Amino acid sequence: MNLLITGAAGFLGARLARTLLQRGTLSGQPIRRVVLTDLFPPPADLLADPRVEARTGPLLAQVAALRDDATGFDGVFHLASAVSGECELDFDLGMASNLDSTRALLDALRHRVVQRGEAPARLVFASSVAVFGPDDDHPLPALVTDATLPTPQTSYGIQKHVCEHLIADCTRKGFVDGRAARLMTVTVRPGKPNGAASSFFSGIVREPLAGLEAVCPVEADVSHPLTSPRATVEGLIRVFECSRTEFGGRTALNLPALNLTVGEMLDALEAVAGPAVRARVRFERDERIAGIVARWPAGSTAERASRLGLQAETSFEDIIRQYIDDHAGHPTALQGMAGG
Amino acid sequence: MNLLITGAAGFLGARLARTLLQRGTLSGQPIRRVVLTDLFPPPADLLADPRVEARTGPLLAQVAALRDDATGFDGVFHLASAVSGECELDFDLGMASNLDSTRALLDALRHRVVQRGEAPARLVFASSVAVFGPDDDHPLPALVTDATLPTPQTSYGIQKHVCEHLIADCTRKGFVDGRAARLMTVTVRPGKPNGAASSFFSGIVREPLAGLEAVCPVEADVSHPLTSPRATVEGLIRVFECSRTEFGGRTALNLPALNLTVGEMLDALEAVAGPAVRARVRFERDERIAGIVARWPAGSTAERASRLGLQAETSFEDIIRQYIDDHAGHPTALQGMAGG
Repeated sequence: MNLLITGAAGFLGARLARTLLQRGTLSGQPIRRVVLTDLFPPPADLLADPRVEARTGPLLAQVAALRDDATGFDGVFHLASAVSGECELDFDLGMASNLDSTRALLDALRHRVVQRGEAPARLVFASSVAVFGPDDDHPLPALVTDATLPTPQTSYGIQKHVCEHLIADCTRKGFVDGRAARLMTVTVRPGKPNGAASSFFSGIVREPLAGLEAVCPVEADVSHPLTSPRATVEGLIRVFECSRTEFGGRTALNLPALNLTVGEMLDALEAVAGPAVRARVRFERDERIAGIVARWPAGSTAERASRLGLQAETSFEDIIRQYIDDHAGHPTALQGMAGG
Repeated sequence: MNLLITGAAGFLGARLARTLLQRGTLSGQPIRRVVLTDLFPPPADLLADPRVEARTGPLLAQVAALRDDATGFDGVFHLASAVSGECELDFDLGMASNLDSTRALLDALRHRVVQRGEAPARLVFASSVAVFGPDDDHPLPALVTDATLPTPQTSYGIQKHVCEHLIADCTRKGFVDGRAARLMTVTVRPGKPNGAASSFFSGIVREPLAGLEAVCPVEADVSHPLTSPRATVEGLIRVFECSRTEFGGRTALNLPALNLTVGEMLDALEAVAGPAVRARVRFERDERIAGIVARWPAGSTAERASRLGLQAETSFEDIIRQYIDDHAGHPTALQGMAGG
């Protein structure tokens, strides 16, 4: 099986690649080759794997090669994306990185089917809970479901939702076998804060664990659908491996989430790491971020994913422990733990 | 007021242009100039109006000039579109005519705002009831509403819905003041059958009135949301003239429809033109068309349009009489009437 992962140097993309390479198979077939594309090279452990071929640069500049490669792709995980904050600041960047790149990728995959007679590649697209937002005549329900009308309130959410539809149409036409899965907010992300307005959902756990102060820009009663990196990767793989009938139509589905308030997140942090760690989180409202977050869903359900056997984590403490386990080899990331 | 109408040589575009020129004002402002674009020149009566400037050719080839014109546009009615049948047969044509053209138009209008400091143009986009369709996990409700989840089942429907979202985002960003209105199936269209799978909804009235046989490709109990050309043009103008608050958010709205079965349409035809005219309609199921129509809504509601004061026709007989009145000057179109 030949795979392509876009956005493979990112946190989730690299984790997905690592998981797939460790499994060695996908849909019961041995994984022979994994092409990893991103703006940056993937982590060294991935590069060292003989099955990996890394290609660095904007996806838009790579699609001609993907189209014309001697070997096509049986499966594609399309994760490459500019994040929400970037897309708000730079409209053209978001349209190019998210919409044009996806469309060019679809065109390349279609070319291989229509011009070369290859079987349609199976494509899993990482969409986002950001497709949901309240519009004047369409307030958000308490929990967004697979059937909630998406009225995105950011360029990022619009672009993700538009790609869901383009993929659905290319699937109907037989150009790809596409499945769009909406990722919930993934915590705990390692590393530094990024341009996403949701960055603090990781920061208020990650920084205190590392002995650093963290600022929470929203009130403690703000609720949000959260998930772990492990569950997200598991969800993407399950969506890839399920049959079309199991997936259910061509409309995007929600991946499972644990719906939690910021206060509950911090209670879990205290339970895992102690009150001193929790005390490193300071509340300081940021009007810009609070305004964006106020227009996000307070929670979600995932009926279709549940039918695929996917379940949300049951405890945020488990998610925090997952982060600690995953990054135990990086003592600086957790240097504050001893003090906690 | 300077206006742009795309798709202005088409049946609805020309009717809209004619109506606006006859009114002489829009939003209380005198209409000084109307640029009409289409693949073909508009009808002679429009060309003869000194306020009209016709530009012929693909919209994509015209947007650079629209962007760089010395005079910008206060208002745009964007009706240009490849129809559903064409888009199914030629994927690239649909994407270019419907998606790329709309995006290029939005870019041109945005350029005038961002680079020239002009006020955002008010833009009315002719979307379509074709955004609605049943997907495996999302069956169609008995009546589609403003809040029904669009899961389009044609490339045309996907492209229209994607444009709705791109216009919503450009509106949020202040690049245009966009309003997307979903047109119901417009009957009675004059002229010849076109590539739309919905063409027969006009044909089964128009051809018998002209003394010709008509084939109805679906059963008499097939129900569909219909509207007249007059109500459609009225709806587009009302959506243009309403305030943003009246429009309600940035999500597309349904224009009103009269929900009718084919049998009820023919009853009305008989009431207006007699049993001999009705007898010219022969039922002969066309699997391809019946299959497409089976995936369309059986009816719709239009709560938001209703709040704007827009109402559906109350009688299909009125719609037929409207057609006869409008085309009374073209005796060949109605030559069968005497025999009815």
